[in-house]
Amino acid sequence: MLIIGERINTSRAAVRNAVLNRDGDYILNEAVSQARAGAAVIDVNCGTSMEKEAEDMLWMMDVIQRNTDIRLSIDSPDHEVVKKALAAHKGTAIVNSITAEKARYEQILPGLGDSDALVVALTMDEKGMPSTAGERFELATILMEICRGYGISKERLLIDPLIRPVSAEPAQAKEVLEAINLIKGIGLKTIAGVSNISFGLPNRKLINRTFLAMAIAAGLDACIMDPLDAAMMSSSLASDAIMGRDEYSMGYIAAFREKRLVG
Amino acid sequence: MLIIGERINTSRAAVRNAVLNRDGDYILNEAVSQARAGAAVIDVNCGTSMEKEAEDMLWMMDVIQRNTDIRLSIDSPDHEVVKKALAAHKGTAIVNSITAEKARYEQILPGLGDSDALVVALTMDEKGMPSTAGERFELATILMEICRGYGISKERLLIDPLIRPVSAEPAQAKEVLEAINLIKGIGLKTIAGVSNISFGLPNRKLINRTFLAMAIAAGLDACIMDPLDAAMMSSSLASDAIMGRDEYSMGYIAAFREKRLVG
Repeated sequence: MLIIGERINTSRAAVRNAVLNRDGDYILNEAVSQARAGAAVIDVNCGTSMEKEAEDMLWMMDVIQRNTDIRLSIDSPDHEVVKKALAAHKGTAIVNSITAEKARYEQILPGLGDSDALVVALTMDEKGMPSTAGERFELATILMEICRGYGISKERLLIDPLIRPVSAEPAQAKEVLEAINLIKGIGLKTIAGVSNISFGLPNRKLINRTFLAMAIAAGLDACIMDPLDAAMMSSSLASDAIMGRDEYSMGYIAAFREKRLVG
Repeated sequence: MLIIGERINTSRAAVRNAVLNRDGDYILNEAVSQARAGAAVIDVNCGTSMEKEAEDMLWMMDVIQRNTDIRLSIDSPDHEVVKKALAAHKGTAIVNSITAEKARYEQILPGLGDSDALVVALTMDEKGMPSTAGERFELATILMEICRGYGISKERLLIDPLIRPVSAEPAQAKEVLEAINLIKGIGLKTIAGVSNISFGLPNRKLINRTFLAMAIAAGLDACIMDPLDAAMMSSSLASDAIMGRDEYSMGYIAAFREKRLVG
């Protein structure tokens, strides 16, 4: 399971303040602690910075990559920010994200063909978010074709089937799990942020960790989450061990020895 | 999710002593506490009683059914015990269990055709336990045909695909999940005791609760488990809510209000 740590996001007040005050130690610590907890990639998002977004993004990236070799997920809807960030990134970046909306992908994708960056592609277009597994699958194939046109092979794509709350639509979990299965069936990788599933229900963390197990069983390759959430990480580690995705359960057993597993 | 409480089993010393001493309060309390925690059926097993098994079984059943309307799962390999227990049972019982081994089903099934009891059928035969999803599915169809021959319709069957430890065979989880899917596909119900999956791994409860979520997503109908294990019950309740099997998530929300949910 590829874990993308979601904590460095200026929608969180502490991160916003650290960026405003150029508190590099805070940002670096957020990156290192997430990596130590099991994140292979750290998402960086300074969407609240408005016209300073590029400057703030480059500063955050520099703080992290000057001191570590942690890979980053460049999380911005602004193609100028993405372009500058990609040029500054060391190693294989992730670009988070495109959709099948023409106005969005036409701006972002031309800058990616020459890089080796992976691309998170959300299954939505001008008509909005899909409801059924079939609609999600169709959008995944459309996204694959769009990316191919810009020289981005399907191996570089991570398709996000966009989970919706089950409290409002009880069939959504089944649709998303089936979508993961269908999308995996044509050789595409899948990614998800699972927390939307639990909107409107109590004890959301329990719902999230439970759904994560189901999604991993369905074939989910990557997850955008908080790796410091021990319950979520425990579900992820246990799921990888169960599904034979953790050779000799070494990752699971190491986490057990380091007392990182809960319930 | 149909939960079958597994705690009344004389392989547990406290239960064995209660049976020896005819401590009806202990047995009744074990039944009622499991039912309150969410078990719809209580398994009764006095396999360690040897030649007194029928007498002990009837005593246990009487203690429970004289005081409550709890349904029981009659858990014995001895056809004489099953026959006497079925005759004494009030309401729809479960018989736990048959296999596709001729010597076993030929003795037990003739006594079941006239009852309305459900039957747990394990996917194994004289050749032993299956390894692949396909072998499990094939045994399920054989069990269905065997039971049909004794006047037991497929609606009365609960097929147990027999989970094996992933520590020894990393592909087993995938095979069992696929087997559940295949078996459900021909209109049969499925049941499992999930604890075998974690044999040989540390923190077994975490593996068990995580696999339970995956199995429910695959369509598992019933589980033999300890309903006093709050982590397992929380996974079961969350899984039902996620999969739209708990209308308006009422069961999940009630458990939350009663502080029965954990992590």
